[in-house]
Amino acid sequence: MTRAHEGATLWLTGLSGAGKTTIADAVAQRLRSEGREVEVLDGDELRRGLSAGLGFSREDRDTHVRRVGFVAELLARHGVVVLVPVIAPYASTRYEVRAAHDARGSSYLEVYVATPLGECARRDVKGLYSKAAAGEITAMTGVDDPYEEPDKPDLRIDTTGMDVAASAQHVLDLLTERSLA
Amino acid sequence: MTRAHEGATLWLTGLSGAGKTTIADAVAQRLRSEGREVEVLDGDELRRGLSAGLGFSREDRDTHVRRVGFVAELLARHGVVVLVPVIAPYASTRYEVRAAHDARGSSYLEVYVATPLGECARRDVKGLYSKAAAGEITAMTGVDDPYEEPDKPDLRIDTTGMDVAASAQHVLDLLTERSLA
Repeated sequence: MTRAHEGATLWLTGLSGAGKTTIADAVAQRLRSEGREVEVLDGDELRRGLSAGLGFSREDRDTHVRRVGFVAELLARHGVVVLVPVIAPYASTRYEVRAAHDARGSSYLEVYVATPLGECARRDVKGLYSKAAAGEITAMTGVDDPYEEPDKPDLRIDTTGMDVAASAQHVLDLLTERSLA
Repeated sequence: MTRAHEGATLWLTGLSGAGKTTIADAVAQRLRSEGREVEVLDGDELRRGLSAGLGFSREDRDTHVRRVGFVAELLARHGVVVLVPVIAPYASTRYEVRAAHDARGSSYLEVYVATPLGECARRDVKGLYSKAAAGEITAMTGVDDPYEEPDKPDLRIDTTGMDVAASAQHVLDLLTERSLA
């Protein structure tokens, strides 16, 4: 089937507070204004819709990431640009999601939002770092739970001192470079 | 956003062996040949992708149906015609899925593939009815597990003595009638 545009999954991986959702929303807005089909697969909505009952153990995180990857591929298959601002802390699971896209011929790009932990904790958008510091929550990625850095992301963005528009532009440039926008 | 076509979810509910998947595949083929974006959400692939570990208790069936409904709506939102040949035995859960579509302004049609139990068991496509009769499996919908018939489906098809093309045509007529094809 010929489509006006090919779909793709852009997975924005990185720590809580790194800027994943903010960048995803800005990219989505730009692409929608150009008439593209865009979906932002928001972590919280997905946890309710797909993964109610799962927690934050390695096994549960992996199951959740695989499900989100499954849904993203289904959408990408039909010409949707799917932005996924989900931490996805484990390299092997991210690799599985990429492989599932490759197997179906769907494009998958990994964007590492590499804002350092100190800056994420300083912003503390959801107040989670201070809760983790106070011992009120555990299994906080980057604090007392692992985050495995991507070693070959398609794009790496450190948002320290960079505004949202500039970060979003890097992602849009990547899409253009890969003939996806 | 203007799209060439609106998406929709067509849920084909009915007993095992009623003809749900066969009809869904025939409708999908016709719509694809007209250039539509079509997805058949196959029950077995979805159980692997979304619901590994869930069984066939009422609670697990309901969770699975809700997840499939969530994914179907995401696709329908982006102009895809989503065919869902999944038993979905409980009326209240089917209603929930419809309501979730309504809440997002996505079209949802219920097709009741109403082939009677006797005919389904005679066909026994997957050999499940004979296994149930032999006591080798339990929780078989229509045998020792409930199936709540839809009371107001958008379409009712009894495939007894009806060929696949005719059944598929009824579904395509429904789409035309609702301005979705």
